[in-house]
Amino acid sequence: MSTIFDKILDGEIPCHKVHEDEHVLAFLDIGPLAEGHTLVIPKERKAQLDQLSDESAAALGRVLPRLCRAVMAATGANAYNVLQNNGGAAHQEVLHVHFHIIPKTATGGLGIRWGASQLDPARAQELIEAMRAHLAR
Amino acid sequence: MSTIFDKILDGEIPCHKVHEDEHVLAFLDIGPLAEGHTLVIPKERKAQLDQLSDESAAALGRVLPRLCRAVMAATGANAYNVLQNNGGAAHQEVLHVHFHIIPKTATGGLGIRWGASQLDPARAQELIEAMRAHLAR
Repeated sequence: MSTIFDKILDGEIPCHKVHEDEHVLAFLDIGPLAEGHTLVIPKERKAQLDQLSDESAAALGRVLPRLCRAVMAATGANAYNVLQNNGGAAHQEVLHVHFHIIPKTATGGLGIRWGASQLDPARAQELIEAMRAHLAR
Repeated sequence: MSTIFDKILDGEIPCHKVHEDEHVLAFLDIGPLAEGHTLVIPKERKAQLDQLSDESAAALGRVLPRLCRAVMAATGANAYNVLQNNGGAAHQEVLHVHFHIIPKTATGGLGIRWGASQLDPARAQELIEAMRAHLAR
C-alpha cells in the first residue's frame, strides 16, 4: 500500500522540506494546526511506531530536539506538542509513521481532552509484569 | 527545580517500573487516560524536548517502538497515541521531558481536537528557510 508519504519520499509529490538525512525526512504539514506545524517521518516504510526498527527509531528520536528548536526559532512559539498517532481510532490518517511537531499559540495548536482516571495498584502490577515479560522476549 | 520525576529517578518515590536502561526510565502513569498509559522519560534532567542532548533523544527514540509493542501486548489495544507536551500552554504538567504512550480504547485514551488550516505557500517558504538556517548553524 503506497501512501502520500511514499510519494513524497520517492519525489513524485513535492514537499516543503525542512530536513533530510539518511533515515529521516521532515517537512511542513499542508494542513497545519498552527504555523510551523512540521511532520517528521522515517524513510523506513512502516505504518505504526511499534513496527519501526531500532535504528530508524533512534535516528528519528535523535533529530526531534533539533527540529523542535528550529520550529521554535522560526515561529517564536515557546510551547508545543509532539504527537504521533497509530491506528484510525487514534486519529492516524496516513499509514506511514509520522511525528507531528505542533506549536501551541493563542489561536492555534493541538486541542487536548485529558480524561484522567486513577491507577489501580493491583492491576498496575499485572500490567508491568506483562510488559516486562514482553520486553524480555 | 526538582520535579516528581527527579524524585522517581532518585528512588525517593516509587513507580510502577516498566523498563530502565542507561538513558531511559519507563513507568505507568498514575493518572492514566486508558489502561496501560505509560510514561517514558530520559534520565537527563531537561524540562523540554528541545533542550535534550542528541544522545539522550536517540536512546528515547530507540526504545519507544519496543515499549509501544509491550503496551499493546499487555493491554490488547491496537491503536494508541504517543504524546510529548512542552510548556504549560501545551498541557505540560511535570517539567521533565516525558513521552506518553496512551492506548486508545472504546472508553479511554487521548481526546484530540484537530482544527486544521491550510498552508500558505509563500509563508511556507519563509518558514522552511528560517528552519533550515537554524538547523545549519
